[in-house]
Amino acid sequence: MADAGLHTLQTSTPQEGFELALKLSRMGVKYTQPSAEVRDRLRKDYEDDADALIATSQVVAINFQTIAAANDYWRGAR
Amino acid sequence: MADAGLHTLQTSTPQEGFELALKLSRMGVKYTQPSAEVRDRLRKDYEDDADALIATSQVVAINFQTIAAANDYWRGAR
Amino acid sequence: MADAGLHTLQTSTPQEGFELALKLSRMGVKYTQPSAEVRDRLRKDYEDDADALIATSQVVAINFQTIAAANDYWRGAR
Amino acid sequence: MADAGLHTLQTSTPQEGFELALKLSRMGVKYTQPSAEVRDRLRKDYEDDADALIATSQVVAINFQTIAAANDYWRGAR
Amino acid sequence: MADAGLHTLQTSTPQEGFELALKLSRMGVKYTQPSAEVRDRLRKDYEDDADALIATSQVVAINFQTIAAANDYWRGAR
Amino acid sequence: MADAGLHTLQTSTPQEGFELALKLSRMGVKYTQPSAEVRDRLRKDYEDDADALIATSQVVAINFQTIAAANDYWRGAR
Repeated sequence: MADAGLHTLQTSTPQEGFELALKLSRMGVKYTQPSAEVRDRLRKDYEDDADALIATSQVVAINFQTIAAANDYWRGAR
Repeated sequence: MADAGLHTLQTSTPQEGFELALKLSRMGVKYTQPSAEVRDRLRKDYEDDADALIATSQVVAINFQTIAAANDYWRGAR
Repeated sequence: MADAGLHTLQTSTPQEGFELALKLSRMGVKYTQPSAEVRDRLRKDYEDDADALIATSQVVAINFQTIAAANDYWRGAR
Repeated sequence: MADAGLHTLQTSTPQEGFELALKLSRMGVKYTQPSAEVRDRLRKDYEDDADALIATSQVVAINFQTIAAANDYWRGAR
Repeated sequence: MADAGLHTLQTSTPQEGFELALKLSRMGVKYTQPSAEVRDRLRKDYEDDADALIATSQVVAINFQTIAAANDYWRGAR
Repeated sequence: MADAGLHTLQTSTPQEGFELALKLSRMGVKYTQPSAEVRDRLRKDYEDDADALIATSQVVAINFQTIAAANDYWRGAR
């Protein structure tokens, strides 16, 4: 993640917050499996596996909880 | 998700909040598997699989926690 | 869920709150598998499967967290 | 659960709170599988299964989060 | 757990809090499988099983959320 | 963990907080499997296993929730 890092949890919109939750979910994988080549190979397996997709969606949901709280649920943007 | 995006977490009722939690859960899958064709094929598998249905319900439950908090649990609507 | 909908997260007692958490857990399944016939068939499988029962209990636990928070943990009812 | 019901989430001590979390976890199973006979049979399987024991411990942990929050973490009892 | 019980969720340091989270995770297992002999036998299986170790780490993480909140994240100790 | 311990949950940046979440996730494993040799052997299995990587990412996400809350989401650093 040296190319990006994680500088803030605040985003302008829920949509950007959701994308940050996706980034966090991928960071969790990258730190354990740093090889982009291996990750690309594994991706071909799990993107056709319903159980893995649901599990991925769960990790994103957990990270989105964090991001949404960090942004006070974007209440001011309503 | 370009067709929709995520503009707000606030909803008028718990029912609408639950439907937004469902949308978030599907967004988590769509970002990992962008092909609607593949998702439709996988859906035929997991909608007849009790374990996958329970796992899906769990992702929805996590997202509903976020949405419910964002709406202060719709307390004013009681 | 057209027959019921979700009108409020507030309940009079923890017992009613737990039953609402059960309802939410089933709603998560119903939206993914709308056929009552298929759900009844799957139920026969998972109600004899310890892993599925534990997983179901976990979804209920997550939804109960939401409902309990929505009711301020029924502190006034103590 | 007609024999007991869930009347309050408040307990005097963390120990009692943990036991209430266990009760909630079992309630989640009982509502899905009401037969005590079937549950006893399944128990013989999962109490010798490390994965099932860990999964059970996770449900208890989630319910304990709820109970602990409901009791303001028993801070006054320190 | 008669030998110990759970008297408080407050600890002096995050390190002690983490150890309490471990204790809670084990309590969840002990109540379901009270036999130390059986637990020791199962331990030999799961301590060499990556999936079980990750699942165990997840239960600890959930319990640590509770303990950390109970201690207001040890902010005063910074 | 005698070499490190867990002294504080406060970090200067979200990036450091994420790294602390990774450390907590590994601590959960280390306490259950203290042998570095065994852990290294198991790592070779799960770092090529998509399901295990997703599960690992989930544990990190849960720990990051805790760390982010402990730092009030680094709001002052925005």
